[in-house]
Amino acid sequence: MLCVKTPEEVLAIIEKEFYPLPGRKELLPLEEALGRVLAEDIIGEEYVPDFHRSTVDGYALRAEDSFGCSEAIPAILPCVGEVLMGQGADFDLEKGCCCAVPTGGALPRGADSVVMLEYVENFGDGSVGIGKPAAPGQNLIFRGDDVSPGKTLLKKGRTLNSRDIGALAAIGRVQVPVVKKLRVAVISTGDELTPPGEKPGPGQVRDVNGPMLAALLKGWGAEAVNYGIVKDEEELLRARTEEALRDCDAVLLSGGSSVGAKDAACRIIESLGELLFHGIAIKPGKPTILGKAGDKPLAGLPGHPVAAWFVTELFVLPLLSRLMGRETERYTVSARLAESLSANHGRAQYQGVRLERREGELWARPIRGKSGLISALAGADGYFCIDRDCEGLPEGAEIRVTIGE
Amino acid sequence: MLCVKTPEEVLAIIEKEFYPLPGRKELLPLEEALGRVLAEDIIGEEYVPDFHRSTVDGYALRAEDSFGCSEAIPAILPCVGEVLMGQGADFDLEKGCCCAVPTGGALPRGADSVVMLEYVENFGDGSVGIGKPAAPGQNLIFRGDDVSPGKTLLKKGRTLNSRDIGALAAIGRVQVPVVKKLRVAVISTGDELTPPGEKPGPGQVRDVNGPMLAALLKGWGAEAVNYGIVKDEEELLRARTEEALRDCDAVLLSGGSSVGAKDAACRIIESLGELLFHGIAIKPGKPTILGKAGDKPLAGLPGHPVAAWFVTELFVLPLLSRLMGRETERYTVSARLAESLSANHGRAQYQGVRLERREGELWARPIRGKSGLISALAGADGYFCIDRDCEGLPEGAEIRVTIGE
Repeated sequence: MLCVKTPEEVLAIIEKEFYPLPGRKELLPLEEALGRVLAEDIIGEEYVPDFHRSTVDGYALRAEDSFGCSEAIPAILPCVGEVLMGQGADFDLEKGCCCAVPTGGALPRGADSVVMLEYVENFGDGSVGIGKPAAPGQNLIFRGDDVSPGKTLLKKGRTLNSRDIGALAAIGRVQVPVVKKLRVAVISTGDELTPPGEKPGPGQVRDVNGPMLAALLKGWGAEAVNYGIVKDEEELLRARTEEALRDCDAVLLSGGSSVGAKDAACRIIESLGELLFHGIAIKPGKPTILGKAGDKPLAGLPGHPVAAWFVTELFVLPLLSRLMGRETERYTVSARLAESLSANHGRAQYQGVRLERREGELWARPIRGKSGLISALAGADGYFCIDRDCEGLPEGAEIRVTIGE
Repeated sequence: MLCVKTPEEVLAIIEKEFYPLPGRKELLPLEEALGRVLAEDIIGEEYVPDFHRSTVDGYALRAEDSFGCSEAIPAILPCVGEVLMGQGADFDLEKGCCCAVPTGGALPRGADSVVMLEYVENFGDGSVGIGKPAAPGQNLIFRGDDVSPGKTLLKKGRTLNSRDIGALAAIGRVQVPVVKKLRVAVISTGDELTPPGEKPGPGQVRDVNGPMLAALLKGWGAEAVNYGIVKDEEELLRARTEEALRDCDAVLLSGGSSVGAKDAACRIIESLGELLFHGIAIKPGKPTILGKAGDKPLAGLPGHPVAAWFVTELFVLPLLSRLMGRETERYTVSARLAESLSANHGRAQYQGVRLERREGELWARPIRGKSGLISALAGADGYFCIDRDCEGLPEGAEIRVTIGE
């Protein structure tokens, strides 16, 4: 019998037993940094923009020179010139004067606001009429409004999205300090497994977990190394696991994680490192093992593909985040259950769903099927959890769906 | 003045003017298919599994031979052998007999259920006692339960996730028909722009849109080709656009999309193809142009990075989905607004937010900043829309946040 841990206990064990790995920083060109995890805070080193910058096409002036003007009684100011795009404005704007600036152009010293073109009449004699008073700071970005030296722009541990890439470009960070990808080994074990490209013989099935878990890890941001299929022979599996431990930062064995005579994963993990627990109170996914060899996690996952997928999604990815110092947040989508669903296991039950929209509202249809069917996951848009104390949910119940990796 | 379209009108124009491009199918190895778009329905061609398969360690039998038994009065059956993992079970199980099967093992012909090991006593004399009656179909997967010939497993247009990769492995589809990635050109225009790796001179700023939009497109699943920065000279820009149109499936110009003398994007798009509209009633992002040259979209985006990002996210990606025949669904996350926010533009207003968790509830804090600041996007976890008819939202208002690419 397994002495199972609850999901919360498992996450606490991960937090306690594993730490961000040291010495994992690498510099990457900006074009390759999307989806990578920042290895340090990004702090501004200069002013962006480095000048007061107009946000409209118009005339730069001292706001006070426009106070009290109106369309009927414009403020008439000499226009002392025109700032050109990308040219700077290295002169002082005298009191009582204005100059033309384009959107994005620099303001001359002294100017503190910009009046939009449509409120200005050009008299053609070197002077213009300002038909609307400006407030100081109007229609411009001050020097350093966007970024100034010492301002923290992005925090260590953040996974960079396209907007962050834009911010890094803005401050000229074209070499980005990121955390090296983790190399994660995936080993499938089972006498009944054939490679997906081969036709299964009698009593055989194709290996699903190898390609599926490799894809899950890759999509999440790890480098997955598929070590293929190993027969259910303890010494073979131990040798392959040792090889994977040498070359990778973490090792996932799938299959053989239960307690039968043929289930060698637990013995191998105990012999190569320290066993942390055997068994999680979830369905599917109960026969899961976690150990560590030095600072490397060594996990034994269920052979059933659906169970292996959930255990990886729910526990292995958070563990890998911990090793990378990666900040992650899983958001859920509200939906209503399209069919009633029973549960009665004393274990948190995870259920794949298809999402469908009815009159703007999302409905989640459980993908039913016996334990062990891969088709219970194919086509699923996400999943949700039925609490261990819940005996079932009626049609229409509000649930929170995780889209998943 | 621009005669602007509403967001709904823009999406309808995209739907009407563009179609899935023909002849874009390619076959990829299963390991490379994650995140790609299926070019055809995936239909089962064989039975998975190809045999009745036990889901537990136990004894296979005819259910009727166990009817009426109990722990006190077990049904005593001769055990005629043991099925080995991955070996098949090519024999008939006679009525009144049973045989041992492992989890995942094949059932012999005639067996219709499996009794779990823990309910069976082995008498050691070649017979066993069954202590719990079995129902037909119990503890097994029937041949073809997972996939059978003709069953549609995954639909054309679906973006493949890790679970789908698992399903493809299960049925042996190691060459996957996917839609070729679109090549999308990104051109930044503006006299004030310097490449991100260079120090801006007076009045200059670094090009944000090139790297940011390339990252957005790449993360979404396109091949982004960054054509760099072109000066605000119509002939130069036209030549670069023509070059991009020859080599790519779509072209995005950013900058010069407004109506000033220097704003050449519209004239160039009109001269190279057909102008579909100029102006969208959103903030930020109003000065947006869409045209088409043959079946290739040609878009003029605002130069302001935040506006360019929103227009690409909201309209360019759906357009590219249309060209790929890609089914997409954008899910939103419910949150409450952490600060009141005003809006008064008669345009749908898009606002970046940071999400924070308070006692399990998500709160969205608007990232404030003047128009044109890239820092208004850096660090944002997502965004939401304030309807055009809404004058603002109070603190605590329920909103729907899109996480975005």
